[in-house]
Amino acid sequence: MKTVYSPRHHGHSGHVELYNGQIVPAFEKPERAEMIRAAVEARGFGATIAPAEHGLAPLSRVHDPRYVDFLSQLTELWLADERPLPILPSFWRAPGMRYIEPETVDGKLGHFSFDAGCCFVAGTWDAIRASADVALTGVDLIRAGESSAFALCRPPGHHAHANAMGGYCFINNAAVAAQAFRDAGAGRVAILDVDYHHGNGTQTIFYDRADVLVLNIHGDPRQEYPYFLGHADEIGAGDGEGFNGNYPLRWGTGFDAWGEALDHACHRVAAYAPDVVVVSLGVDTYKDDPISQFRLDSPDYLAIGGRIARLGLPTLFVQEGGYAVEAIGVNVANTLEGFLQR
Amino acid sequence: MKTVYSPRHHGHSGHVELYNGQIVPAFEKPERAEMIRAAVEARGFGATIAPAEHGLAPLSRVHDPRYVDFLSQLTELWLADERPLPILPSFWRAPGMRYIEPETVDGKLGHFSFDAGCCFVAGTWDAIRASADVALTGVDLIRAGESSAFALCRPPGHHAHANAMGGYCFINNAAVAAQAFRDAGAGRVAILDVDYHHGNGTQTIFYDRADVLVLNIHGDPRQEYPYFLGHADEIGAGDGEGFNGNYPLRWGTGFDAWGEALDHACHRVAAYAPDVVVVSLGVDTYKDDPISQFRLDSPDYLAIGGRIARLGLPTLFVQEGGYAVEAIGVNVANTLEGFLQR
Ligand SMILES: [Zn+2]
Ligand SMILES: [Zn+2]
Repeated sequence: MKTVYSPRHHGHSGHVELYNGQIVPAFEKPERAEMIRAAVEARGFGATIAPAEHGLAPLSRVHDPRYVDFLSQLTELWLADERPLPILPSFWRAPGMRYIEPETVDGKLGHFSFDAGCCFVAGTWDAIRASADVALTGVDLIRAGESSAFALCRPPGHHAHANAMGGYCFINNAAVAAQAFRDAGAGRVAILDVDYHHGNGTQTIFYDRADVLVLNIHGDPRQEYPYFLGHADEIGAGDGEGFNGNYPLRWGTGFDAWGEALDHACHRVAAYAPDVVVVSLGVDTYKDDPISQFRLDSPDYLAIGGRIARLGLPTLFVQEGGYAVEAIGVNVANTLEGFLQR
Repeated sequence: MKTVYSPRHHGHSGHVELYNGQIVPAFEKPERAEMIRAAVEARGFGATIAPAEHGLAPLSRVHDPRYVDFLSQLTELWLADERPLPILPSFWRAPGMRYIEPETVDGKLGHFSFDAGCCFVAGTWDAIRASADVALTGVDLIRAGESSAFALCRPPGHHAHANAMGGYCFINNAAVAAQAFRDAGAGRVAILDVDYHHGNGTQTIFYDRADVLVLNIHGDPRQEYPYFLGHADEIGAGDGEGFNGNYPLRWGTGFDAWGEALDHACHRVAAYAPDVVVVSLGVDTYKDDPISQFRLDSPDYLAIGGRIARLGLPTLFVQEGGYAVEAIGVNVANTLEGFLQR
């Protein structure tokens, strides 16, 4: 299994987030990707390759083009206003408010975001583009005949909506990849999101579509971020009814219950018979993750990889969350090793 | 004209806000109310009286009772979690997300707020209650036969929705007062909001009602907070169609254009022939306000008060914003003096 990686993720460094009423260094930091790369390379799964440039068109297949424009222009707009970096939104478009893009940069920031978890520094846009290219290059590998690939994306993507950033996520790499598979001829794509947090962006992007099955195993939104999406009764709408599935699990969930949910989800994927599976691979389900409340241990990730491999389908792993930096590499590498050992 | 004032506003002190990507002391600070009180008392308009307790029932006439419960319990919930004060939300219920109240305090904070402008310290809830009592005592004065009264509310209210705090506002004092007038037998109430910022909370609370006319003169939401509400085409809905009016004005607006909008709004109030007028009195329209972009000067507030007085209606002034602390007292007192001099 090849790994796609770009050092350009380092451009997204030194950024902050609003956490517990304070501005703190973001938990989503560059060391995460480096720990993962080191662990994966140490296991010798296959070559690490650089992403190919794919441009912005594949991003606008799942994102509002105005939103992509905004991300590409934000830093320039901000600096033209002679304001210091980093950039963090302070205001948001609440439920019941209008969808009219404001003229001012603060207004645009609120229009195109839903929390204070997405911070821009000078290299953020370049890192976002590289991260999407990493995912799209993973798609290319599968299309060229590889049975699996690992897209070591950073920043992550699954919280990003079609028109809004939030939760460390700007461009929804997994959604971009799934759409790229569709556009390249795949009839059905399944996205299996095993990150601790509900992939609200991925869900909303495909909510009314039957050609992309989206399944999420995650912390119950009654207890956990993103709080306001990810309930079990969200099953899709319109053409997409029955093609969205959520497995909200309570704080303290260990691998027994988590593994049952995965097993159920994998049966759904098998029944759907997709041409390809995209795994939104977060390892913040780990027992010592600093912002999460599940109790998976490192060996469990071998079992997760093995269970996904039993589907016998072409599989693209797309990196999402995981904030226990010391363990993140081991847990990601274990997942991939479990997959390859099947 | 009597002033209703409570020193309990001081409980809401030392709080912070997210501004320009940083946590800063809130612009909405106790000195504001003290400067206003000093200036108004120096002019000798009438006695300053303490508010009478009115309980929570009048608040729940315009707010979701679950929201009022949340405000009353938040600090206790937070401290039970052994977390340090102050409290500031970090996550919000974005458009398209579910309206299901989470179990955890962080989730509840997001459920019941729409930005990071509402911070709780130990005395915040007491200050909120006192502020609502100040407004309700103002209602009592008018009901008892006074032709006008000044409710020196702090914290302010007009951004607060029926179920969400934001923009320094927790309980919508002007809305609570208008509803109290209705409940006491007034057939029609007009709310005239002259604060620099659109009163999004007041608008939404009465949007489908014909018995409360809501008129707002404010910074164009394309340029200014709250950004996503306050456009000219928001005219009310259902029974309320035609009973909401917005006058969005561009950055740099001076008294010529502002006064024309006031004149137009006053004609609408007169045509509506309400039993009473509630003025949401913000003076952040002032040229040196640190967070606003209009160019009204101190003598203009005399003219504003005079124009409102020409309506010849019972009038309750409810204090809203204004952040140029040195000038806030003069500008508020000028408005009231202009009203009384007519
Ligand atoms: Zn996560
Ligand atoms: Zn204001």
